[in-house]
Amino acid sequence: MNTVFPTPEGGTLLVAGSDAAFPVRRVYCVGRNYADHAREMGDSGREPPFFFAKPGDAVLSIADGEVGTMPYPPRTQDLHHEIELVAALGSGGRDLTAEQAAACVWGYAIGLDMTRRDLQGAAKKSGRPWEVGKAFDHSAPIGPVHPIAATGALSQGRIALTVNGQERQVGDLSDMIWSVPEALAYLSTLFELKAGDLVFTGTPAGVGAVVPGDLLEGTIEGLGALQVRIGA
Amino acid sequence: MNTVFPTPEGGTLLVAGSDAAFPVRRVYCVGRNYADHAREMGDSGREPPFFFAKPGDAVLSIADGEVGTMPYPPRTQDLHHEIELVAALGSGGRDLTAEQAAACVWGYAIGLDMTRRDLQGAAKKSGRPWEVGKAFDHSAPIGPVHPIAATGALSQGRIALTVNGQERQVGDLSDMIWSVPEALAYLSTLFELKAGDLVFTGTPAGVGAVVPGDLLEGTIEGLGALQVRIGA
Repeated sequence: MNTVFPTPEGGTLLVAGSDAAFPVRRVYCVGRNYADHAREMGDSGREPPFFFAKPGDAVLSIADGEVGTMPYPPRTQDLHHEIELVAALGSGGRDLTAEQAAACVWGYAIGLDMTRRDLQGAAKKSGRPWEVGKAFDHSAPIGPVHPIAATGALSQGRIALTVNGQERQVGDLSDMIWSVPEALAYLSTLFELKAGDLVFTGTPAGVGAVVPGDLLEGTIEGLGALQVRIGA
Repeated sequence: MNTVFPTPEGGTLLVAGSDAAFPVRRVYCVGRNYADHAREMGDSGREPPFFFAKPGDAVLSIADGEVGTMPYPPRTQDLHHEIELVAALGSGGRDLTAEQAAACVWGYAIGLDMTRRDLQGAAKKSGRPWEVGKAFDHSAPIGPVHPIAATGALSQGRIALTVNGQERQVGDLSDMIWSVPEALAYLSTLFELKAGDLVFTGTPAGVGAVVPGDLLEGTIEGLGALQVRIGA
C-alpha cells in the first residue's frame, strides 16, 4: 500500500529453535491472576478476570543467553517487576470455549510486565486509566517464544524472579486463579483474538521496585531464563 | 523479515485529496478535555490531562461521503458516542515543547471515541483499567486525514454530532482545556510519540447512548462530515 510515510514497524519476538520471528499484534495482560498476588494487592476470592493492554510495539525482544537492557522509563520513581508466563497466539476468534482457546496457543514465552507503580497507583485511586502505569515504551521485555509443539501445554511448573541474584517472586503456574485457556476464553468475549496476540497471564506475589543497574532474571520451568538489566 | 505467520495488518486511514494512506501506529485519547464534558463527568477546574489508548488496528476508516458501518460491540448494553478532533502525527519525539509538538501534527480528522460506558463505568468505580470500555474492536471510526498544509492549525471551530438528525453534542474547539499542542507536549513526557500516532483530543458535552440502526453524523468546521451507521 502506498503510504504518506513508511508504515511504523510492529513488535516482533524471537522463536526458540528457528530463524523466523513471531510478529506481535496486540498485548493483553490478565490482572491479579495468582491468589497470593491478588491478596497482596487487596483482593479476596475468585472474581471474573480483568484485563489491560500494552502497545504491540512496547515489546522488548531478548534472546536466550543475552542480557537485554530496558531503559528506566520517564515520569516514575517506582518501577516494579512482574514476572509472567506469556501465551503467544497463532490463531484466534470470538467467544471461544476454553478448549478452543487452548488450541489458539502457538507457544509460550517468559515476560516481564514492567509497571510504573506510582503512576498506576494514582490512576487506580482516582478511577483513571492504567495506560500511564502499564503501557509505556519498552514495558514488556520478553524472551523467545517456545512452540507449544515442543513444550506441550503448560499448566504447572515453577515461575520465579531474582533481582541481583536474590529471590523476589516465586510461584507455580498451577496457582493461577484462571487457567490460560479460561483467561483466553473470557478475553475473547470482549475482544476478537487473532494470530500475533500476546497474553500476559498474571504474576505471583513478591512484586517490588528495581533501580538502574539491577539485573533481573526470570525463570519458568521448561522455558529457560530471561535476563534484563535496568538501564539509566 | 521471515515470520512464522503473516505479519498482522495495522490500521490505516484515508488521506483527503490523495491516493496514499496514513498508516496508524498507536491511538491515544485525552480524557475530559472540554470543560462542559468534564463537568458532566464530575470534574471541576483544570487538572493535568490524562490519557488512555486504543489499539492501532481498532480504527474504522470511513471515506468522505460514505456511510460507514460500525458493528454494535459485544458485552455492552450502553454504547456511547464521543465526537472528537483527531490529531494525526507525521513525526514525534519525547519531552516536546508545545511548539515542537505543534510541528509534529501532519493533519486532522474527525473521529468517534466509541465507548462501552457500562463497562467503563464499572472499571472506574473499582479502580480497574479502562480498556474493556474503550479499546474494543472498531471502537474508533475515523474519516480521512486532512493535511495541516491545507487546513492550517485548528484551534477553533464548531464540533458537533447528530444522531438520526437530532443534535446531541456541540462545542467549539476553542473550548478545549488543553490545546492540541499542550496535550501532545504533556503526552510526550509519558510516551515517545512517533509518526503514525493518532491523538483523540477530547469530546464536548452531550455524550449518550446509541442503538443498532442509528445514523451518527459528526462534523468539525473545516473537516467536513463523518457518517457512521450502528450495525447489528
